[in-house]
Amino acid sequence: MTDYAKTLANLRKTLMDKGVDAFILPYRNRFQAHFLRPHDERIRFVSGFEGSAGYVAVTLDDAAVFYDQRYAIAVEKQVDGLVFERVDYHETMPLDWVIEKVSAANKRPTGRRALARPAAAESDSELARGTKVAVDGWLHSIRDVQKMRSKAAITLLPENPVDAIWTDRPVPEVTPAHIHPVEIAGQTSAEKRNRLAGDRPILITAMDSIGWLLNIRGGDTPYMPALEATAILYPDASLTLFCDPGKVTDTVRAHLGEDVTIPPFSKLEEAIATLPNIQLDETSCPAALEPYIKQYKHAPDPCLLPKACKNETEQAAIRNAHERDGLALTRFLIWLSTIKLDGSVSELDISAKLDAFRAEHTDYLGHSFPNIVGFGAHSASIHTILNEDTNQVIDKPGMVLIDSGGQYLDGTTDVTRTICIGDPTEEMKHHYTLVLKGHIAMSSALFPSSATGAQLDTLARQFLWSEGKDYAHGTGHGVGLYGDVHEGPCGLSPRVQEKLKPGMLLSIEPGYYQTGDFGIRIENLVLVKESDIEGFLRFDPVTMAPIDTRLIDTSLMSAAELEWLNTYHMAVYDTHAEQLSEMERAVLARMTAPVYP
Amino acid sequence: MTDYAKTLANLRKTLMDKGVDAFILPYRNRFQAHFLRPHDERIRFVSGFEGSAGYVAVTLDDAAVFYDQRYAIAVEKQVDGLVFERVDYHETMPLDWVIEKVSAANKRPTGRRALARPAAAESDSELARGTKVAVDGWLHSIRDVQKMRSKAAITLLPENPVDAIWTDRPVPEVTPAHIHPVEIAGQTSAEKRNRLAGDRPILITAMDSIGWLLNIRGGDTPYMPALEATAILYPDASLTLFCDPGKVTDTVRAHLGEDVTIPPFSKLEEAIATLPNIQLDETSCPAALEPYIKQYKHAPDPCLLPKACKNETEQAAIRNAHERDGLALTRFLIWLSTIKLDGSVSELDISAKLDAFRAEHTDYLGHSFPNIVGFGAHSASIHTILNEDTNQVIDKPGMVLIDSGGQYLDGTTDVTRTICIGDPTEEMKHHYTLVLKGHIAMSSALFPSSATGAQLDTLARQFLWSEGKDYAHGTGHGVGLYGDVHEGPCGLSPRVQEKLKPGMLLSIEPGYYQTGDFGIRIENLVLVKESDIEGFLRFDPVTMAPIDTRLIDTSLMSAAELEWLNTYHMAVYDTHAEQLSEMERAVLARMTAPVYP
Repeated sequence: MTDYAKTLANLRKTLMDKGVDAFILPYRNRFQAHFLRPHDERIRFVSGFEGSAGYVAVTLDDAAVFYDQRYAIAVEKQVDGLVFERVDYHETMPLDWVIEKVSAANKRPTGRRALARPAAAESDSELARGTKVAVDGWLHSIRDVQKMRSKAAITLLPENPVDAIWTDRPVPEVTPAHIHPVEIAGQTSAEKRNRLAGDRPILITAMDSIGWLLNIRGGDTPYMPALEATAILYPDASLTLFCDPGKVTDTVRAHLGEDVTIPPFSKLEEAIATLPNIQLDETSCPAALEPYIKQYKHAPDPCLLPKACKNETEQAAIRNAHERDGLALTRFLIWLSTIKLDGSVSELDISAKLDAFRAEHTDYLGHSFPNIVGFGAHSASIHTILNEDTNQVIDKPGMVLIDSGGQYLDGTTDVTRTICIGDPTEEMKHHYTLVLKGHIAMSSALFPSSATGAQLDTLARQFLWSEGKDYAHGTGHGVGLYGDVHEGPCGLSPRVQEKLKPGMLLSIEPGYYQTGDFGIRIENLVLVKESDIEGFLRFDPVTMAPIDTRLIDTSLMSAAELEWLNTYHMAVYDTHAEQLSEMERAVLARMTAPVYP
Repeated sequence: MTDYAKTLANLRKTLMDKGVDAFILPYRNRFQAHFLRPHDERIRFVSGFEGSAGYVAVTLDDAAVFYDQRYAIAVEKQVDGLVFERVDYHETMPLDWVIEKVSAANKRPTGRRALARPAAAESDSELARGTKVAVDGWLHSIRDVQKMRSKAAITLLPENPVDAIWTDRPVPEVTPAHIHPVEIAGQTSAEKRNRLAGDRPILITAMDSIGWLLNIRGGDTPYMPALEATAILYPDASLTLFCDPGKVTDTVRAHLGEDVTIPPFSKLEEAIATLPNIQLDETSCPAALEPYIKQYKHAPDPCLLPKACKNETEQAAIRNAHERDGLALTRFLIWLSTIKLDGSVSELDISAKLDAFRAEHTDYLGHSFPNIVGFGAHSASIHTILNEDTNQVIDKPGMVLIDSGGQYLDGTTDVTRTICIGDPTEEMKHHYTLVLKGHIAMSSALFPSSATGAQLDTLARQFLWSEGKDYAHGTGHGVGLYGDVHEGPCGLSPRVQEKLKPGMLLSIEPGYYQTGDFGIRIENLVLVKESDIEGFLRFDPVTMAPIDTRLIDTSLMSAAELEWLNTYHMAVYDTHAEQLSEMERAVLARMTAPVYP
């Protein structure tokens, strides 16, 4: 029996003890982080899967790891197919899988529950409604559990059953919170609180919303400077911040002022129970709090939109951060253009070199997400996970896809470049050009203020579609300011119905992935701006780094597309030239030289 | 006091009698028709508004007519601005308007309800929740009323208050149902019923669903061959058809067979009340039935998708109908190319001539919606309503926009052409070309089977967007077969989340409207087909009529776009040439001659 099989056996014992059919575990912690510290990596503990999204579901007879296409290759490598089914959760959600498995098991005479439950008289759908599923209410929102309840009987467990069997669970460090200065935020916390306070107390459960609202950051989450906390904003604009008081230094306490009180997190349920009527966001409020809530009105987290729509001060800060980050990336790309195909450089070396260029600037505060560096066939994996086992050396011509981002006090970056090492094939150039055309169509679009992310998404896909090709991810996501690199509510994706608004910061990152062969992604961050035409908006790129022009098939590009590229490259050169060595400047001049038909 | 002011006074008396604040009246009848016969034209009776969509809302102090942009010009002409506010319902929905008006009236010391209700202590939102709104439950779906109830107190009136004051209300004719032959439907009613019957009785309230399911049609609705009826489909595939038995001839009764019983419509509530548990579609089931329903499960009307996805037999029938209709339209366009600018021809003449060409074929059964013929500035009105008062003669160069459709036993058509009479201006050509590019981008698109109407819609708008322009309507809608010219659930519009599937019949009709100046729309119907590439779909045009090439600025067209146009025109010529006179053939050859850069 492998370790994972033993863990499953332990989990199944809990299920039997609780009298339930299944347990569903999402990749999340009680603060809805989507990057987790080791002590919250329950899916990795249970299954070995290292993706930063997904689920595990366990029934008495079956178990599965749920992944998305970004991790299609990783899940094959990391998860034992004899112990777990591997299921794309965009195809089948864990609860549907559980209902199907439980229903099938109940019909089998040898099923573990055959004795306990007579199957003959019940129809499939009746069996399904009777499926009993346990979840940790801290890891699921009220909305999630409401949806799940329409399909099955959901039990909120008082304690996560993984924690009970996880004997060597790491103990998290206590990391202090720090001030996010008003010179960057452009608005004081008191101003924000006065603007958002409503007619009843508002429960705010999203960590980045709390950080934005209080102009503070923390160190509780990898890749995102967040403080683990929950807040209640009162009608008089005062606020209670439930968190580990050990993380709040005297400086931060002084910054927060007298209108902010800081009880320990353990007092949260008790405090909620005293309030006759609150406002909360069902999509982020943990279901575990539901029993303590007397009466509530659902409304979207009031911080979401003002946080997404960066003010002028924030936009200026974001531009500064991106200039700094773009310089590091540009110097890295200049270095990359000099490497030899002799096997002396590996994916991990490339990643380390990129980190080193970023780290040269003292303002660099670390990754905004784990570096993705994929060479050759690895570039076709949307989110390559770098490690010693799969590390590939550069010993032949091929594509290298580098997706990375940095955190700075004045901004969060996220940028992808795909570079050809050696000479590209015609096939590579053809697809690179289709992706670039999509990137330019989105970047240069003028669009009505009524347009949603779902509508705009098509602009970037159309050239691939016209050849019967596509990419299995959204075209773009919102980005925070020294915050979450995947920030709601905006995005450019078939699933995003939010309208774009001036000041939103988004990625534009179309791609193309030919499994076993090569992958392409070209990503800039852009700010949404008012255009010269009333009612129409446009994008303005803030990422400043060269796009590989050796991969372009100019015969497929229109004059307008080439003009966009040449104008962008002129801005890249002008932004960085003065800060480069003479040698570097010469290389950048070549990289950004105008492309003609 | 005008007649309309008197009607409002009468309605307000009803509101006071019932103790409610407002009444909301949608353009609809109890069978959810969107084209109404005179006896159901309650909005026209109350307000004079002749649009085929909209609402009237009446409070004790205010009244409004709600229209959409298609009727922006018509509403100005038809509705007295002193009696009614004129509100775009895409900006403000009637209930929101009512809540605002009632709330404002309650705060005014002179408001009619000031004495009855103390305003001082209440906040705006509390007043709003207290707004009492009366509706006719037959004219609103269960879903509509659920949504309204989240904002106001809704009273379902046992009788429509308009009917009580409408003394000269017309009496509708009794029109017989008729058989829709299996040679066109491709499937018997028994086959369809067996396929769709579920585990409990299914209430089917949409007229065109009932027509499709039973392979019958009726004559109860203008422009759409529907029978006013409601049906219950039982698990054994038998069906009860509640309708006026006087409309069911012996032939139709024999066609329906023994498994279909036909009680009078008045027995519907009683029958529903005997069923312990039914399935229904909350979006189409009238709220008036709610009190009789014991328990129900919501599911989309099971006929919607199979009706929308036309089978091979239906697709062949649709092509035949469109060839026939396209020939009439082509001959009409040839005639139109000969008219003089001497004022001898008017919009109404053009409309009559178009009808005459269609009527030459004995299979023509009438309009699928009222003809839209707009010349000059009238073409800028998205849905010009033709009448003697506004009838314009052709006495100078200008654009004429002609949107029309026919009903045939084997198909429903809908086609728009915009033709320049005399020489076009550069501005006209420029915008016509942008619209045509959008039409071609959609028509020639290859797209993944996961694509929704909202995603595809962008393809047709992008060229207008790039100049900060747009059109205030969807790009396309589903179309029935000898049925509803606006058929769900598919469409090409920012609001449609339905995925496209093979066999769906849709319009592609981008436009551009420069108020006071000219309007452009180019519309074909297309069938969704599997493409040669797995997982990708494409469109195939079934409308066969020339597109005005004199309006094209070829410098804006790509080689691929011109190739699509030339290939389409070759098909138009080949389809019709043999059936034209020599003179007509020569003109069509000129109209469909290849266009080169």
